[in-house]
Amino acid sequence: MPEPEKNAPTGPDPAPARGEEVSEEVTPEEQLRELIRLRAMCDVSRAVAGTLDLDRLLNLVVAKTTEVMEADRSSLFLIDWDTEELWSKVAQGVRYMEIRFPMDLGLAGAVATSGEVLNIPDAYEDERFNREVDKRTGYRTRSVLAVPMNDKAGERIGVMQVLNKRGDEEFTSEDEELLKSLAGQAAIAVENAQLYEEQKKSFISFVETLTTAMDARDPITAGHSKRVTDYSVALAEELGYSEKQLEILNAAALMHDIGKIGVPEVVLFKDGKLDDEEYKIIQSHARHTLNILEKINFDREKREIPKMAACHHERLDGEGYPLGLAGDEIPEAGRVLAIGDIFDAITSQRHYRDRMEFERVLRVLDEESKGHIEPEFVRAFKNLTVSRVVLIMEQDNVEPVEGEDLELFENITLLELQEPLEQEEPLTDEEDHLIERFNYYYHRSISDGWVPD
Amino acid sequence: MPEPEKNAPTGPDPAPARGEEVSEEVTPEEQLRELIRLRAMCDVSRAVAGTLDLDRLLNLVVAKTTEVMEADRSSLFLIDWDTEELWSKVAQGVRYMEIRFPMDLGLAGAVATSGEVLNIPDAYEDERFNREVDKRTGYRTRSVLAVPMNDKAGERIGVMQVLNKRGDEEFTSEDEELLKSLAGQAAIAVENAQLYEEQKKSFISFVETLTTAMDARDPITAGHSKRVTDYSVALAEELGYSEKQLEILNAAALMHDIGKIGVPEVVLFKDGKLDDEEYKIIQSHARHTLNILEKINFDREKREIPKMAACHHERLDGEGYPLGLAGDEIPEAGRVLAIGDIFDAITSQRHYRDRMEFERVLRVLDEESKGHIEPEFVRAFKNLTVSRVVLIMEQDNVEPVEGEDLELFENITLLELQEPLEQEEPLTDEEDHLIERFNYYYHRSISDGWVPD
Repeated sequence: MPEPEKNAPTGPDPAPARGEEVSEEVTPEEQLRELIRLRAMCDVSRAVAGTLDLDRLLNLVVAKTTEVMEADRSSLFLIDWDTEELWSKVAQGVRYMEIRFPMDLGLAGAVATSGEVLNIPDAYEDERFNREVDKRTGYRTRSVLAVPMNDKAGERIGVMQVLNKRGDEEFTSEDEELLKSLAGQAAIAVENAQLYEEQKKSFISFVETLTTAMDARDPITAGHSKRVTDYSVALAEELGYSEKQLEILNAAALMHDIGKIGVPEVVLFKDGKLDDEEYKIIQSHARHTLNILEKINFDREKREIPKMAACHHERLDGEGYPLGLAGDEIPEAGRVLAIGDIFDAITSQRHYRDRMEFERVLRVLDEESKGHIEPEFVRAFKNLTVSRVVLIMEQDNVEPVEGEDLELFENITLLELQEPLEQEEPLTDEEDHLIERFNYYYHRSISDGWVPD
Repeated sequence: MPEPEKNAPTGPDPAPARGEEVSEEVTPEEQLRELIRLRAMCDVSRAVAGTLDLDRLLNLVVAKTTEVMEADRSSLFLIDWDTEELWSKVAQGVRYMEIRFPMDLGLAGAVATSGEVLNIPDAYEDERFNREVDKRTGYRTRSVLAVPMNDKAGERIGVMQVLNKRGDEEFTSEDEELLKSLAGQAAIAVENAQLYEEQKKSFISFVETLTTAMDARDPITAGHSKRVTDYSVALAEELGYSEKQLEILNAAALMHDIGKIGVPEVVLFKDGKLDDEEYKIIQSHARHTLNILEKINFDREKREIPKMAACHHERLDGEGYPLGLAGDEIPEAGRVLAIGDIFDAITSQRHYRDRMEFERVLRVLDEESKGHIEPEFVRAFKNLTVSRVVLIMEQDNVEPVEGEDLELFENITLLELQEPLEQEEPLTDEEDHLIERFNYYYHRSISDGWVPD
């Protein structure tokens, strides 16, 4: 900036500039304090404006606030008015963990319920302070400053709290003003992120509800789209997909059979053998999926969804449909979906017969790996735990899987289940118990509590 | 702020505070200039962070920029890389008007293509300047400052431009820095708003595509949901609905028959007379619409959509379904939809017969006003122009409505069409011509270019 600005005063007693109200009696010291405050504000607002991802945003606000407020720790709690709880999400490695507690608990609770600012020099001398957290974590809270967060409509949406001003000091009234400003900025960003997430949730819940209703037209397909989605997402997690990639795969998976809306029910749900013509009509659903999804305005990162969803019947050898792609030409997500789709098809309960024996199911996957589905993905799929798979398989069953069995299944992968299932030698007691419990859930009758809707 | 901040220096030569880098050699004058710049930045960033509505955002940025930059006018143009155009939306009363031009036109175009900052003291001495706008508007451009806008990924997304620095001055290099900062803030807000709008568009285009595919299962219902939506939105505009209300009604209308997924096709599309049982099954679609939509996570302002959508077969006298509500108990949007739904049902082309005579259509609406549908809304519906209605009715016809006829229809309301249609006296030449042209489109054969999809 070589040239001094024409409107900028050069003397020690500044005059108003750029239409801003500058009090005539402002001293250089006050000016500097405002400068420091504004720098912090601009810094935070630039940072928080940059994301619509609520989890990342909450953690960013907390980190920036700790820094700017010269505090030791900060928290941001949002109010859930439905459950009357305060909640937050805290980074745990690459995932976020949710924390929840009653909205009248502790100092943050006092601010959430009263809407007043609390500036406490020593938390242990305030009876509202909840010492439990310190006890659990070994932390020693001293000074606390907590302010309410209000949305654009003036409704209280949360609390921002900073702990232990650095240098063993107390928070000043100037700190209060700064934290209130930060809370105002954070509230705007949080509101935007929530609107965006709600919009995303509406979309995905609409897709899920619609495909569930479509599947429910026939007992044979009831719950199919959701289960295929859950199996595919589980496999993709095993393959190391990122949150973003999982979100996209989830949407594509839910919509993989949407093209069935273009297949007449009389053919789609025909009870009995199909002739060649009928078989072709059924196969056309994958092409319909492509055509339908291509009409949707997906944003840039979701642009591959139509092809991902449509390619769940492609085969590695190029003999699949609707496009007849081979090997790597098939979108990876399509190859993931193919495994979820086949696995659900051969493990589904039919209204007229029991499920295919599970050892045969696993052998079918092995057989299909020779030219049809991706062998590497089948291996990854078999690394899923039995508990993960059983919970997806039985998600529409009103009878839950018992906790004890879940624990047992949690330590066993499908591959580890395959061995004793195929073994002809006598089994150990553990193996015997495992197979007995697995088969109990796998073969329990539909009438045990099947809810087709 | 009674207490001075502990870390704040009180002398004229300030030391660093709050971890910010403050150069040791900062003079009070430089401090003041930074203060002024930061105030402007904070002011703008607070304002622009507060909305995810792109139209409002663009206009807000422009207004704030004009003020902060002490300019006479400002513009913000976004780059459409698909069409290689610059575009913007300008407030026109309560609506927004879109402006578009080639992305290499004028000084803004030069910045869009090169990515460089332009600071021009006199636009008329620069050959890249496009004088056409001044010629058309009578404005006299002098100084121009234009800077590129980049998104988070560093991709160029637009140009911000300010005209005529106040006091007949030129823009300084300090102005350049300030506008670049503002453009950075604006770019973040624009990116957020675009993400949000894309998400909304994905949702609504999914609903539209799905319901279109559902309707297309039978030629009799092909295009029904979209036409009902367009008629209902046209009526709601006539009733003075806000943009927000129209958006919600639009979504509810598109989904009004979504419950038909719960009605077996063999009943839904039965060719011939229905027995009582079948009739009840068909009627159940409205209840299914309610049940399905209630499972969707709509955000607060869209929470009424399930009931709005489900109530399109309610009747003012309480004899309708699925809830049997009467009069004002029926959500207003449901009463609007009822009219769109009936109008489309009685004006639809059937694959086996011509449309119902239009004078009878209007008489049916009058008859239905006696206890079934809202008389006030029927009156408002008849205030729609013939052109609006014909364009909706013929939206799936590949043969367009001719421009000359559209112009004729633009000045005539349905009510004004009803009189000559019902009249037994001899008609004037104008009336005769109007009816002849209207009936041409109304009765032209399906085979003239009907695309059932």
